[in-house]
Amino acid sequence: MARHIFLCPLRWADMDAFGHVNNVVFLRYLEEARIDFMFRLAPGEGSVSFTGGSVVARHEIDYLRPLVHRHEPVTVETWVADISAASLTVHYEVKDGETVYVRASTVVVPYNLAAGRPRRITAEEKLFLQRYLDGAVTV
Amino acid sequence: MARHIFLCPLRWADMDAFGHVNNVVFLRYLEEARIDFMFRLAPGEGSVSFTGGSVVARHEIDYLRPLVHRHEPVTVETWVADISAASLTVHYEVKDGETVYVRASTVVVPYNLAAGRPRRITAEEKLFLQRYLDGAVTV
Amino acid sequence: MARHIFLCPLRWADMDAFGHVNNVVFLRYLEEARIDFMFRLAPGEGSVSFTGGSVVARHEIDYLRPLVHRHEPVTVETWVADISAASLTVHYEVKDGETVYVRASTVVVPYNLAAGRPRRITAEEKLFLQRYLDGAVTV
Amino acid sequence: MARHIFLCPLRWADMDAFGHVNNVVFLRYLEEARIDFMFRLAPGEGSVSFTGGSVVARHEIDYLRPLVHRHEPVTVETWVADISAASLTVHYEVKDGETVYVRASTVVVPYNLAAGRPRRITAEEKLFLQRYLDGAVTV
Repeated sequence: MARHIFLCPLRWADMDAFGHVNNVVFLRYLEEARIDFMFRLAPGEGSVSFTGGSVVARHEIDYLRPLVHRHEPVTVETWVADISAASLTVHYEVKDGETVYVRASTVVVPYNLAAGRPRRITAEEKLFLQRYLDGAVTV
Repeated sequence: MARHIFLCPLRWADMDAFGHVNNVVFLRYLEEARIDFMFRLAPGEGSVSFTGGSVVARHEIDYLRPLVHRHEPVTVETWVADISAASLTVHYEVKDGETVYVRASTVVVPYNLAAGRPRRITAEEKLFLQRYLDGAVTV
Repeated sequence: MARHIFLCPLRWADMDAFGHVNNVVFLRYLEEARIDFMFRLAPGEGSVSFTGGSVVARHEIDYLRPLVHRHEPVTVETWVADISAASLTVHYEVKDGETVYVRASTVVVPYNLAAGRPRRITAEEKLFLQRYLDGAVTV
Repeated sequence: MARHIFLCPLRWADMDAFGHVNNVVFLRYLEEARIDFMFRLAPGEGSVSFTGGSVVARHEIDYLRPLVHRHEPVTVETWVADISAASLTVHYEVKDGETVYVRASTVVVPYNLAAGRPRRITAEEKLFLQRYLDGAVTV
């Protein structure tokens, strides 16, 4: 029931002409958190897992508060809300302590890049993912 | 019952290391279409409208097919699926003819930048938006 | 002695928090112009040319005037200032009519991606490039 | 005679379709290092300095080795090579230990955003900059 914690560095250029982190850039933060979770952590904990490729099938994202550039990273909490045969749903909160800027979810489809098509989640991957299984957050 | 048509140019750097347009970049295409619709077209058709500011409250986006860089633009169709007192929902399809790459929707909140808070949709804006009102597409 | 003309579309998000097109983004405009010149035009005029890969070895770029987002594209003029055995130097002006925003140059090295190393410019490529040969502009 | 050290985090999306960090993105890394140096460090060491605004007048950048995404940051060393009345030249190396990926320099012009024009370097700023004064590196 753990959540994966990723400290996401901001870049000054993440802000747009309105002086806030642009809404599209938050998806980039989620990508960084997801890659840290699925590409770095998963293999590091004993899984060959998702490095062979995966595809984003869907995002939902709610913007709760504006964020301005600062030198300290923002926290992205990531967890798994659903695991099916050939896809998983990841949820996130982008936050500072209790202050939540963004809540979001992504449907990820493991992909066999060599074969050029989706593939099933392996038993090993499922074991890894189940350790980060937690309830959905209404977004 | 019209849809707004925006021909969105791609950039070579929109592709990521997998050789496809990155999923996050499609949100950039939607931003371009929305700005063309709300910042350029709306005022041009007799509305002072949304140039005073607007905020994205939520995105939903489904990825149906991968897209590779080419020199021709991709078509983004935009229409209005819902108008309430202080927000509107925009729907989009990113496509070539019958081939749909992405379906998405965005909840936009008109914003008074000077006052620093959301504001209601004006009667003039509502008239403009109603001309692009169409049913929701299941995403 | 021709110059290659590329009409480069801007994106709203090209602006940074100061409300101008960010200095880094101009390099993206140059990339688009270069790709249009070397990937699209060159093959289209009878050369298999540079599609096999090329690498940027050096940029110089001078910023003369700030640029603000607008719906009309900006003009990027591109020409060839130097051709050696295994590299070429491209020059550019980003402009509206007589108003120049940026002058820049790039040293490009043709690259054999399969072999993983630089390669010489072919006779066919040289013929193509010579048609766009023009003097250097002091940048 | 110190150099400013900035550990610059990479993002997965910094890579382009060739699987390397895109040449334009290195300018983003330089921007991050420069902002850390001029916006964060300078004020933090007792200078109001450059937070009032500054403009990039020129970049030179040489690409020595390709860089692939990894989870560890890359080191950007920054120092001051020249200080004149109304501009300064910053030099950089992007590196891992002895391995240098990029050498570059930027001419920065302090800017009075309120007045909308360049301004002279203050005595206080000059004192700060002189502590990071070092020779030019041939780029």
